[in-house]
Amino acid sequence: MTKSQTSKVTPWEVSGNIDYNKLIKEFGVSKIDEKTLKRIEKHTKEIHYMLRRKVFFAHRDLNWLLDEYEKGNKFFLYTGRAPSGPVHLGHLLPWIFTKWLQDKFGVELWFQFPDEEKFLFKQDLSFEDSQKYLNENMLDVIALGFDPKKTHFIIDTQHANLMYKEAIKVAKKINFSMVKSSFGLTDQANIGSIFYTSMQAVPTFLPSVIKGKNIPCLIPHAIDQDPHFRLTRDIMPKLGYYKPASIQCIFLPPLSGTEGKMSSSEDITIFTTDSPKEVERKINKYAFSGGQATIEEHRKKGGNPDIDVCFQYLKMFFEEDDKKLAQIEKDYKSGKLLTGELKKYTIEKINSFLKEHQKKRESAKKDVERFIYKN
Amino acid sequence: MTKSQTSKVTPWEVSGNIDYNKLIKEFGVSKIDEKTLKRIEKHTKEIHYMLRRKVFFAHRDLNWLLDEYEKGNKFFLYTGRAPSGPVHLGHLLPWIFTKWLQDKFGVELWFQFPDEEKFLFKQDLSFEDSQKYLNENMLDVIALGFDPKKTHFIIDTQHANLMYKEAIKVAKKINFSMVKSSFGLTDQANIGSIFYTSMQAVPTFLPSVIKGKNIPCLIPHAIDQDPHFRLTRDIMPKLGYYKPASIQCIFLPPLSGTEGKMSSSEDITIFTTDSPKEVERKINKYAFSGGQATIEEHRKKGGNPDIDVCFQYLKMFFEEDDKKLAQIEKDYKSGKLLTGELKKYTIEKINSFLKEHQKKRESAKKDVERFIYKN
Repeated sequence: MTKSQTSKVTPWEVSGNIDYNKLIKEFGVSKIDEKTLKRIEKHTKEIHYMLRRKVFFAHRDLNWLLDEYEKGNKFFLYTGRAPSGPVHLGHLLPWIFTKWLQDKFGVELWFQFPDEEKFLFKQDLSFEDSQKYLNENMLDVIALGFDPKKTHFIIDTQHANLMYKEAIKVAKKINFSMVKSSFGLTDQANIGSIFYTSMQAVPTFLPSVIKGKNIPCLIPHAIDQDPHFRLTRDIMPKLGYYKPASIQCIFLPPLSGTEGKMSSSEDITIFTTDSPKEVERKINKYAFSGGQATIEEHRKKGGNPDIDVCFQYLKMFFEEDDKKLAQIEKDYKSGKLLTGELKKYTIEKINSFLKEHQKKRESAKKDVERFIYKN
Repeated sequence: MTKSQTSKVTPWEVSGNIDYNKLIKEFGVSKIDEKTLKRIEKHTKEIHYMLRRKVFFAHRDLNWLLDEYEKGNKFFLYTGRAPSGPVHLGHLLPWIFTKWLQDKFGVELWFQFPDEEKFLFKQDLSFEDSQKYLNENMLDVIALGFDPKKTHFIIDTQHANLMYKEAIKVAKKINFSMVKSSFGLTDQANIGSIFYTSMQAVPTFLPSVIKGKNIPCLIPHAIDQDPHFRLTRDIMPKLGYYKPASIQCIFLPPLSGTEGKMSSSEDITIFTTDSPKEVERKINKYAFSGGQATIEEHRKKGGNPDIDVCFQYLKMFFEEDDKKLAQIEKDYKSGKLLTGELKKYTIEKINSFLKEHQKKRESAKKDVERFIYKN
């Protein structure tokens, strides 16, 4: 694996070897410290492994949010998915954590499907295809087990009666210069893509509009979306709403290695609909290994879990058990655990997860209407 | 009256002494010639005085539209009103002609109320005020007697479920450079105003979307809106729709003179809700006169109807009778008709029109719901 020197993290491109500590400074987010973890634990009774393991590593205004919560001012969660292809494991990661937050805090989740975003930003994506993916993607979200009574899907084009009216109020406060500097858009950008960030801002205050009172908002999201919410946070007080708090995760790496993020490119990605055979083939063929070139060398020198994709998948997603994970790490480092064995274990974990997910995904088909917010 | 040397005609500003012949060249529209008038007359049996008198003076693709009509491919009409203040006589002018077109051709009218446009373009206009004006403005449109069975009001924020989905398809084909050169927007323009032209494009093909077949569109409008539709016409074939045809009118002059257009500034405008006393006061006090400084001088030299605002109002709007208008023109030029007399006659004509309009406007309150398009 060659590590590129430069990395890029925008809502539309993530590439290179990402230095998350640098991002914290660049974006101006805060590291989640032990004190904040303790405050969370006071309410949740446990700390999710994605928090313990710094998969969710940064935040904005979490302590303010907890202050409000402790005063009895419950927040709601907001996250989303821009349909542009099938859902893969990288997408599920923040949603799984979001579900945990919903369960532990007993709060509402507003889940946005901006079905125009990728259509506007990808030259070759047709609106019809974005609708096809929308329908598919909703199943993956439902399959994760969100509480249908507390979860509302908002689809930009289908809820435009609610959203456009609010988006223009945001849009009036953002000029093209700001969009240029926040997202790097140029004069060649289409005017829908220029406008789009106002639609992504709406769910941060839509529940407040609907319920007629100011409600704090927490956005769990992958760090690449931060430029949207940075801009949103600047605007919200001007419209009389709270700045949304947020909690950011790192990216699940692609099969090819620990650079960039899992994307919709076939060979570096495991989709939620992949068969056990496909998962096995992809992991065996493509999953970048931190092991040595030969068994003998591996037994002698040991492997490097930090750059091993399978180990990262276990750590970030599939192995909740800290003791088991520590054992795997130790055995891999010592050379006791071989790459083939680590891959086999990871394949089993992924397939066991996907078997369950695919079952729930199938049964989700009958539940879609329950999740879509009714105006 | 001092005539400024430069004039400006954009959808958001009309000022100076407008040279309509120059605009025809600049905008690339065609003059309505005698041959086209004859073709219209074949179907309408008469020629509306606004056509005879070149109030509607230019067009795009009218002959193509008539070709289609004669093949049995009926068009629909599209015009609109961006609520930002009370309706004045200048607004009514193209709508009166639009009603005539609806009656004579028996076609549908899609009337757009882009209730976000002026909110986005005017710093000080609140969304709440734009909604107040929306409700008021709809009454003026209904009062003109459009056929409720064939007339559909489309309100951008209330019909966004229908419109936003289509607007993004337009928006994907327009980049910021194009908006810059079409409207003169800069990097300081807010991103809602940049996006807006795509919303104004939608009614040109929305009926085609709803009815699932390509329907020709004719847009009667004041010439300042042409930059929107010029852009729209470039995009429509790329989306598989006809280019909309259009027919353009000149501006009803403000009371202050024949420069610019009637606007919402109190002293130069007659609103549809003005009382007979207010009309009398405004005309007497503000209506720019083409008459001479003294009665003696007027009797000797005569007046100039071309720059006389009252005469222009009669010609463009209130005196349908050609013979009567010719007599007034002759008498005014000869000095037989005094400015005071011309004003008196104009006041009577306006007040007689407004009396009827205000009655219908009142009764329109019960009809609003019938006119708003039901998704």
